[in-house]
Amino acid sequence: MSTVTCITSVNIAVIKYWGKRDETLILPVNDSISATLDTNHLHTKTTVMISPTFKEDQIWLNGQEEDIKNPRLQNCLTQIRKRARNSNHIDQWKVHICSENNFPTAAGLASSAAGYACLVAALAKLYQVEGDISSIARIGSGSACRSVMGGFVRWYMGSEPNGADSIAKQIVPASHWPEMRILILVVNDAKKKVSSSIGMKRTMETSDLVQYRIKHVIPERIKRMEQAIVEKDFKIFAEHTMKDSNQMHAVCLDAYPPFVYMNDVSHAIVDLVHAYNEAVNEVKVAYTFDAGPNATLYLLEESVPEFVGVLDHFYPPGINLEKYRRGLPLNEVTDSPELFNNINAKKQAPGSLKYIIYTKVGDGPKYLEDPKDHLLNKEGLPIS
Amino acid sequence: MSTVTCITSVNIAVIKYWGKRDETLILPVNDSISATLDTNHLHTKTTVMISPTFKEDQIWLNGQEEDIKNPRLQNCLTQIRKRARNSNHIDQWKVHICSENNFPTAAGLASSAAGYACLVAALAKLYQVEGDISSIARIGSGSACRSVMGGFVRWYMGSEPNGADSIAKQIVPASHWPEMRILILVVNDAKKKVSSSIGMKRTMETSDLVQYRIKHVIPERIKRMEQAIVEKDFKIFAEHTMKDSNQMHAVCLDAYPPFVYMNDVSHAIVDLVHAYNEAVNEVKVAYTFDAGPNATLYLLEESVPEFVGVLDHFYPPGINLEKYRRGLPLNEVTDSPELFNNINAKKQAPGSLKYIIYTKVGDGPKYLEDPKDHLLNKEGLPIS
Repeated sequence: MSTVTCITSVNIAVIKYWGKRDETLILPVNDSISATLDTNHLHTKTTVMISPTFKEDQIWLNGQEEDIKNPRLQNCLTQIRKRARNSNHIDQWKVHICSENNFPTAAGLASSAAGYACLVAALAKLYQVEGDISSIARIGSGSACRSVMGGFVRWYMGSEPNGADSIAKQIVPASHWPEMRILILVVNDAKKKVSSSIGMKRTMETSDLVQYRIKHVIPERIKRMEQAIVEKDFKIFAEHTMKDSNQMHAVCLDAYPPFVYMNDVSHAIVDLVHAYNEAVNEVKVAYTFDAGPNATLYLLEESVPEFVGVLDHFYPPGINLEKYRRGLPLNEVTDSPELFNNINAKKQAPGSLKYIIYTKVGDGPKYLEDPKDHLLNKEGLPIS
Repeated sequence: MSTVTCITSVNIAVIKYWGKRDETLILPVNDSISATLDTNHLHTKTTVMISPTFKEDQIWLNGQEEDIKNPRLQNCLTQIRKRARNSNHIDQWKVHICSENNFPTAAGLASSAAGYACLVAALAKLYQVEGDISSIARIGSGSACRSVMGGFVRWYMGSEPNGADSIAKQIVPASHWPEMRILILVVNDAKKKVSSSIGMKRTMETSDLVQYRIKHVIPERIKRMEQAIVEKDFKIFAEHTMKDSNQMHAVCLDAYPPFVYMNDVSHAIVDLVHAYNEAVNEVKVAYTFDAGPNATLYLLEESVPEFVGVLDHFYPPGINLEKYRRGLPLNEVTDSPELFNNINAKKQAPGSLKYIIYTKVGDGPKYLEDPKDHLLNKEGLPIS
C-alpha cells in the first residue's frame, strides 16, 4: 500500500490558450503563458493510493464519487501507468483518488487545470514517473499542463502529431519576480455559460478572426511577453496581458453563434483599470479574464494598498471585510479621495463583487508528507 | 426668400462601416450596406430657408441654437453652395436651418445619419443641386450618405484620395422586398459610451484584428449580402447581418483600451434570437447592433406575430402596451406556450426593454410641400 497527497494551484494565463488543433490529445493552436498561483490560497488537494487489495479504480471529487471511466481521466491513468518505474508490478494495482478544492466551485474559478495537474503530480510521485509530466496533465485538461510547475510557465504548442513536444516549461521561478501580486475579483453572475471546450471548438470552426490571431498576433506577443517576464518589465507585461485577454473574448464574439463570458461588471472593471492607470499616469494594474466574468488582476506589491483603496471606493464591499478579503492579508489600504476624483469611472452598487482573493505567484505542486493531510483513510475511503 | 422642408429616416447597416481612412473627408476603410427605414416612424425633419435679409447662417437643433461653425456642417454648406444651380447669386444669401428628431435623442438611436442626410437633401432642393448628393451627406456624417436614398443601399468606399467615388448607390428600392420588417428594441442603459468617431479611430489605430476584417472578410461578405438582397434570400441576409454585427463589436473589444457598446441585455437578446431560430429550426430573425446597446432586428412580416409573442414572453413589457409598442400596429401577437418552452433562453426582468419600434424599409427623404410643415416662420425663426 502506498499513498501520496499533493496540493496544486490554478494558473492564470497572460497569453491565452483558446483553440485546439487536436481534440483528443488536447493540442493547442498556439503557445500560451501563465503564472501558477500560490498553493496557500487557491488549491486542489488530491490523495492517490494504490493497494493490491483494491478491487477497482475509484475517484471522489469534492465529496462525491465520480465516474472513473471519464476518458480524459483514463488517458491520464494509462499514460502514468505506462511510465511507472516501480517494481512489483504495482502498475497492475488499482488506484483510489480523492480530490477537493479549497475554493467554492460556484465561484467560477477554473478548477480543472489545478485538478488534473494535482492528480498527475500525485500519481507521478506514487508511480515514480520521471521526466516531463506536463504532457500527461495536458491530456487531462489542456491548461493543466501549466500548473505542474511554479512561477511563470510557457506551454509550447509543439508540432508533432502525437503531441510529444506539446509540453510546458518554466520561464522563471516565482522567486525571479517576487514583487508580483494577483487580485482575483469574484463577480456575481447567474448566466449559463458556454463551456470552454465548446467555446474553443466553435471559435475554431466559425470565427474568421481567430485565424489571424493564431498566425499573426500570438507568435510576436509570446516572444515579447516572455522577454517582459525575464526582464521584469511590468508595463509590457501588463499591456500584453490586457490585449490578449481582450482578443480572446473578441474572437468568442466573432464566433457563430457568438458567446460572451464577460458581463457588465467585468467590463466596468476593465474601464476602472484603464481609468486608474490613466489617473496615475502609469500602467500599474493589468486585468485578464478567462471563460467567466471574474477578473484576475496582476499588479506589483507596491501598488496594492493604493489600488485596493480604489477598488473599495468604486466597488463597495457588500459583506464584512473579513469575508470579503481573502488570501494574503491586506493590512494597508490607502484612502485617497483626491485620486478617486481623478479616476474617470463609475461607482458600482455594493456587492457587485462577491469577494476578492489576494495572492501571489507560487512554486507549483507541493507534496504533503504528514499522514494527517491525506484525504483517504487506511481502507482507501474518503475521510469525510 | 425660399423654404424647403424634408423628412429623412435613419438607416441600419447590415454590413457595418467601422473605420475611416480619411478623417476629414470621412472616407471609410470598407464598403457597407444598410436599409433606410420608413420616414413614418423614425425621422429627422429639417427646414432650410434662404433670404437676402438674413444677416448670418444659423442653425437650431431640437429647439436649441447650435454653433453654425461646426466644421462638418460648414463642409456640407460649402459643397452645396459650390454646386448651387440657382440664378441670382442666392448662394451668397445666408441660410437658416431648423431640425428636429421625432424620437428621443436619449434613446441612443443614431440620429446624425438621418440629420445630415435630411439637411443635405433639403439644401440640395433649395439650391437646385443635381446629381449625387450622397458624397455631400458623407462629409457631414459618414453613414448619412446611405440615408439620402431609400431601400437597400451600398456605400462604396471608393479609391480616389479626394473621395469623389466614395458614394452611396441604391441596391434595390424598398418595393423589391416589401415583406422586410424591422423591430428596434430600445434597451435601458446608463453607461457612458465611447463616441463612434473615437471608437473607430481607436479601432483603426490599435486593433490587430480589424485589418484582417477589412481586407479578408468584408469584400466577400459585401458581395454575398448584395446578392442575398437581390435574391431576397433571408437566411443568407440574416446570417451575414448577425456575423457582421458581432465582428464589428469584436474589433472594438480588440482595440486598446477596449470598449463595448452592447450590455448584458444586448447579449441576452442575441442569445434569444439564436435560441428562437433554433427552436423553429429556421433563421427567421437577425439582430444587429450599432454604437449602443439597442438591438435592431430584421425579420419578414410573416414572422412578426410569432416573434413579438416570444419577445413579450421573455422580455415582459414594463409599461403599458400603448407606450411600449411604437411604429406600425402590432395587432396580431401569437401566444405559443409550447414554443416558449422550446426556446432555451432566460426570461428577463420586466422593463429590460424601454420600448420597441416596429417599422419597415422606406423610400428615402420626403419633401413636405405644405407650409404648415415648416419648422421656420416667415422671419426665418423656429416655430416653437
